[in-house]
Amino acid sequence: MTAVTIRDVAMRDGLQIEEPIDTATKLELLEAICATGVREVEVTAFVSPSKVPALADAAEICRHLHRFPDVRFSALVASVNGARRALDAGVAHLEYVVSASDAHSRANVGRDTEASAALIGDIVDAAHIADATVEVIIATAWDCPFDGPTPTGRVTRIVEQAVAAGADRIAIADTIGTTTPRRVTDLVDAVRPLIGDLPLGAHFHNTRGTGLASAYAAVQAGITRLDASVGGLGGCPFAPGASGNIATEDLVYLLRDCGIETGVDLDAAIRAGQVAIGAVGGGTGSALMRAGDRKLVGQA
Amino acid sequence: MTAVTIRDVAMRDGLQIEEPIDTATKLELLEAICATGVREVEVTAFVSPSKVPALADAAEICRHLHRFPDVRFSALVASVNGARRALDAGVAHLEYVVSASDAHSRANVGRDTEASAALIGDIVDAAHIADATVEVIIATAWDCPFDGPTPTGRVTRIVEQAVAAGADRIAIADTIGTTTPRRVTDLVDAVRPLIGDLPLGAHFHNTRGTGLASAYAAVQAGITRLDASVGGLGGCPFAPGASGNIATEDLVYLLRDCGIETGVDLDAAIRAGQVAIGAVGGGTGSALMRAGDRKLVGQA
Repeated sequence: MTAVTIRDVAMRDGLQIEEPIDTATKLELLEAICATGVREVEVTAFVSPSKVPALADAAEICRHLHRFPDVRFSALVASVNGARRALDAGVAHLEYVVSASDAHSRANVGRDTEASAALIGDIVDAAHIADATVEVIIATAWDCPFDGPTPTGRVTRIVEQAVAAGADRIAIADTIGTTTPRRVTDLVDAVRPLIGDLPLGAHFHNTRGTGLASAYAAVQAGITRLDASVGGLGGCPFAPGASGNIATEDLVYLLRDCGIETGVDLDAAIRAGQVAIGAVGGGTGSALMRAGDRKLVGQA
Repeated sequence: MTAVTIRDVAMRDGLQIEEPIDTATKLELLEAICATGVREVEVTAFVSPSKVPALADAAEICRHLHRFPDVRFSALVASVNGARRALDAGVAHLEYVVSASDAHSRANVGRDTEASAALIGDIVDAAHIADATVEVIIATAWDCPFDGPTPTGRVTRIVEQAVAAGADRIAIADTIGTTTPRRVTDLVDAVRPLIGDLPLGAHFHNTRGTGLASAYAAVQAGITRLDASVGGLGGCPFAPGASGNIATEDLVYLLRDCGIETGVDLDAAIRAGQVAIGAVGGGTGSALMRAGDRKLVGQA
């Protein structure tokens, strides 16, 4: 393991439960994120503006992405209609979310898991016709806030459906920030044999303080794609006041010491975290924002 | 790996940089800590009351320990004189701290590393005559706030001196909360061959968000003794506002999912964390205090 690709998700997962902020402020945040050297950014979601007003400017945001030619941008969708809107807006990489627990799936998109998984094929077809890719993200892959622990078989079934439907990537997401290293290892081991050469990503929240430990376990298990959010944006509606996504800068700090390249500049990521916290007007922020980098060289 | 012994250090490392609180309040905290089922508690320090006024009541605290016969209590000392005072107060288990970096050692105890290490033998002798044990804790084992990275050889040299002097336990401490999993593994691997059958412990702060990941790496490397602090008490004077020691409840949450027994009840640890935060009148608290346990069973 010598490199990990970090996808910054502050623009989508970080902002989606916040009060809406204006597009210009978002673009300043995007500028700061792209200045970190991060190679992938989840930039918005094409979902119901009434359910997620904070991301109602999705198409407008996409008009500015040409300014960052070195970054791979993706957008989240939750329906075939959303996928079409994203493709119309020029998005080249879709993320389609399927919750592995029925209760979360219904709360999130008004359909159960099976009904959501049944749409993968249509979304993949629409994307591929438009020369776009689809990553299937399996939400509540470890736990559901309503249904409790998610049986592994519910996750692997979605994985098999996604692979059969021609998905280009798979990701497993700890939507409510409950998982821990051993459970990460177990699920990665269960999923990997099913996906051939498809890239596998993982998405962790730090809600219970275990996000970085889980990310480290994922990397040990061979995961090379991790989501993270500058400033640790992305709190969970089921745990008010808790930490959000694992912070990009905290993850970079950890991986750097493990000799793992991310291409992300730590100081720039801390600055982007400050922009992120400023943009949303608060939040817990990241550990690196509070404590700063460690001293890297000894005194002569 | 099926069991890890957690030592709660909130009473010492947690309180030492706080404004002094009265002894009765401390005893309420101690009661809450012991009610968690934790088997070891670092209960105070016999150090200069003028330098650490928060622990000036060390001898008084020790008069109450007989109420908790199932808990192994230890107290930190920084000099031969402190060791004698602790032994006079009936402490059966001393911790003697030696900073692996000269600059931290001088700032902490007014002596360089070599001068501190030279006292190990006297402290061990005084303790053993009194039927007490001595754990040598190597502070700034990974990094010093002044000197930067600590060369591994400075740590292993202290380990060898401690073993030669008859120390009963060794511990490596991430005093300023900078270390990360790979560096933990590397140092554990360097120290373990030097200590024979002596117990080896590790002490992590979550200052840069990596504390639990480092603890997990330590457990993977064979460490079975970890320090932690209810409520995550124990902020670092070099990083104001940052997180403190890894929180006992967060660590228990992680280890439970890994099938590792600690004997600590998670709900009781969360309650003790609340007592701790109440006692010091603030602090960041733990992730489990903010988010609560995950739902452990599915719906029928």
